[in-house]
Amino acid sequence: MSPRDAALELDAASALRGRRDHFRLPPGTIYLDGNSLGALPHGVAERLAHVVTEEWGRGLIASWNTAGWIDLPRRVGDRVAALLDLPEGTVWVSDSTSVSLFKTMVAACRLRPGRDVIVLERATFPTDGYIAASVARMLDLELRWAESDRVEEYLDDRVALVCLTHVDFRTGAMFDVDRVTARAHEVGALMLWDLCHTAGAVPVDLVTAGADFAVGCSYKYLNAGPGSPAFMYAAREHHAHLDQPLSGWMSHARPFDMELGYEPVEGVGRLASGTPPILALSALDAALDAFEGVDPGDLRAASLSLTDLFIRLVEERLPGVFEVLTPREHARRGSQVSLRHPEAYAIVSALIARGVVGDFRTPDVARFGFAPLYLTHADVYDAVDHLVGVMEGREHDRPEHAVRRAVT
Amino acid sequence: MSPRDAALELDAASALRGRRDHFRLPPGTIYLDGNSLGALPHGVAERLAHVVTEEWGRGLIASWNTAGWIDLPRRVGDRVAALLDLPEGTVWVSDSTSVSLFKTMVAACRLRPGRDVIVLERATFPTDGYIAASVARMLDLELRWAESDRVEEYLDDRVALVCLTHVDFRTGAMFDVDRVTARAHEVGALMLWDLCHTAGAVPVDLVTAGADFAVGCSYKYLNAGPGSPAFMYAAREHHAHLDQPLSGWMSHARPFDMELGYEPVEGVGRLASGTPPILALSALDAALDAFEGVDPGDLRAASLSLTDLFIRLVEERLPGVFEVLTPREHARRGSQVSLRHPEAYAIVSALIARGVVGDFRTPDVARFGFAPLYLTHADVYDAVDHLVGVMEGREHDRPEHAVRRAVT
Repeated sequence: MSPRDAALELDAASALRGRRDHFRLPPGTIYLDGNSLGALPHGVAERLAHVVTEEWGRGLIASWNTAGWIDLPRRVGDRVAALLDLPEGTVWVSDSTSVSLFKTMVAACRLRPGRDVIVLERATFPTDGYIAASVARMLDLELRWAESDRVEEYLDDRVALVCLTHVDFRTGAMFDVDRVTARAHEVGALMLWDLCHTAGAVPVDLVTAGADFAVGCSYKYLNAGPGSPAFMYAAREHHAHLDQPLSGWMSHARPFDMELGYEPVEGVGRLASGTPPILALSALDAALDAFEGVDPGDLRAASLSLTDLFIRLVEERLPGVFEVLTPREHARRGSQVSLRHPEAYAIVSALIARGVVGDFRTPDVARFGFAPLYLTHADVYDAVDHLVGVMEGREHDRPEHAVRRAVT
Repeated sequence: MSPRDAALELDAASALRGRRDHFRLPPGTIYLDGNSLGALPHGVAERLAHVVTEEWGRGLIASWNTAGWIDLPRRVGDRVAALLDLPEGTVWVSDSTSVSLFKTMVAACRLRPGRDVIVLERATFPTDGYIAASVARMLDLELRWAESDRVEEYLDDRVALVCLTHVDFRTGAMFDVDRVTARAHEVGALMLWDLCHTAGAVPVDLVTAGADFAVGCSYKYLNAGPGSPAFMYAAREHHAHLDQPLSGWMSHARPFDMELGYEPVEGVGRLASGTPPILALSALDAALDAFEGVDPGDLRAASLSLTDLFIRLVEERLPGVFEVLTPREHARRGSQVSLRHPEAYAIVSALIARGVVGDFRTPDVARFGFAPLYLTHADVYDAVDHLVGVMEGREHDRPEHAVRRAVT
């Protein structure tokens, strides 16, 4: 059997076969950048058209009630919760990841008065670090930067909060949530997980781990569109004492009584701030339909099978050309594969010219995301085939691949 | 000539005649709630369909560059700036009003170190007060609550920031921007104007007044849809020293270098936080087309003519029934008329049953917004005719109008 036929056979045996039919993928493209911006699920355009034309255009202001807009952050939050195996009423969706990090970080640190350190890892996604620095400044705390492979050595009884990205955006390496959360709790700190590169691709059990907070974005593996809002998780035990700084009217116990004094609502709605972004929430709501009936175990199995195959084919066909930054060990791997190469930028650019879309992360990382809902083993085979073509033809030497452009 | 014919004559003479053709208004509805949620402009649904299907679905990640997503907050900000007679490069659009207030309030207070008071008015929209309370707590400042009709008496050299809503959401009363801003500056304070009920209906000249900051929402008279993002204005003289607390990666000088250290970008982009909400920004961009070619003076003249007519007809046809809360004086009136009545809730509900949509503000205010782009004098005449019908038939006594529902 040819290697490509073997890939096709894996697809035929996958529990997720046919799931890509839920997406509109442009023909001629192998899209390995769903970890940056997820592909468009069917139903999103239709839902937005309905929300705009019928709910807004025809229903006008009444749609806050009749179309259930006012409850949308909670309802969409509950759907995200279900996908992440979190309890109902513990997830809220309203603002960007950066803003959501600010809210949850401040809330967490206020639950640990007298402690004055936030622990972050040096490999964190930048916005987590920038926001933590602002939180530290405003609450008079210190940032402590840990090496990612030995975070536990940085924990002590001064630590209020440990904030880590579950799956590293550069390397795809993954933390042991149970172990790190337990270690944070041992020193009396709270644990916040950034699930941006987790949600929709890698199952995680925050309840068993006892994690306190989580934030994650919805425009990557959740496929909710460019700049869609982030979700926030707060463990129920913290709800009664949640004290977050963006205390806008939507987090008030009685927003429409228009009282001058602030009294926060009970429950996870306390994480709300302003008027919820209805168009974006509706897009996310529709995008989540693509996950209906998907078993998280099947999702994980498909993801690992795709990344296993990609790593194996790259090493077999281009031995010694790339350093595989992503861990081989399943328990430590997210849903992406990162290849280090001094000419990574040009190689990614040359691949894009061939219709294989990955992305580049400074200084020398070619990053390939494997969204298990819409990628197949045949895609993986073909992508590596293109990569071989690029390297053998030295297509990355062409001048048009030298000029860098920013991509998110 | 009948009174209704007189109204039709005013419409025929209006500089804005025909402008309502830019909107999709449901037949049989007179929509006097554009100060809560603006009507749907033509072109928004089409633009969103294009952004979703073509830019996102087909262009995928490349659209951050090829479709100009990355610059959308600035480009849309510049369009809002043009509408508000503000300079290019001084307006940014990204987050909710509450979040935008937090950013600008903190930035403003940090520009006045050593001062420890924020002045607000008791009539402020609640979220302004809640957010100011959070800012005061985090920066160790005090809130000072002023009576709206004598704010100037509350100013002294302890005041860092004066934050006022230009047009009062309950009464429609309007501040004298020049005078109050000048008085704030005299004591060395900075001035932040909340333009939520101003933008798109009432011209304001913040540059001549010398105002420092402004925030306003885009889902009211700017018609950008439910929960659309707010705009922030920062006077150019403050840009070099802007220091805002939601310092996410999009406000970094080089976001895609993914540096651990935060270095803010030059200019108004310093007010950015997370990844911009592309669907919402696109909707706002398309919604602004309805203002193309509209002279702000004509907008204001139409608004005043509509509210003048409404007040006159209510007083002529229902003498003594309502207290008109909104100032008669043009210079002190926004684009709404608020009528006080003990049964205001039931009256609004009975009007809605007749297709005349206003809204209710606790405890006893019936509020009618006059969006000059899509409302006509004939609408005003017909709305008052319905109001007369409600009051004469005591329709508000019917039990179905007694149950209160929340509307934003």
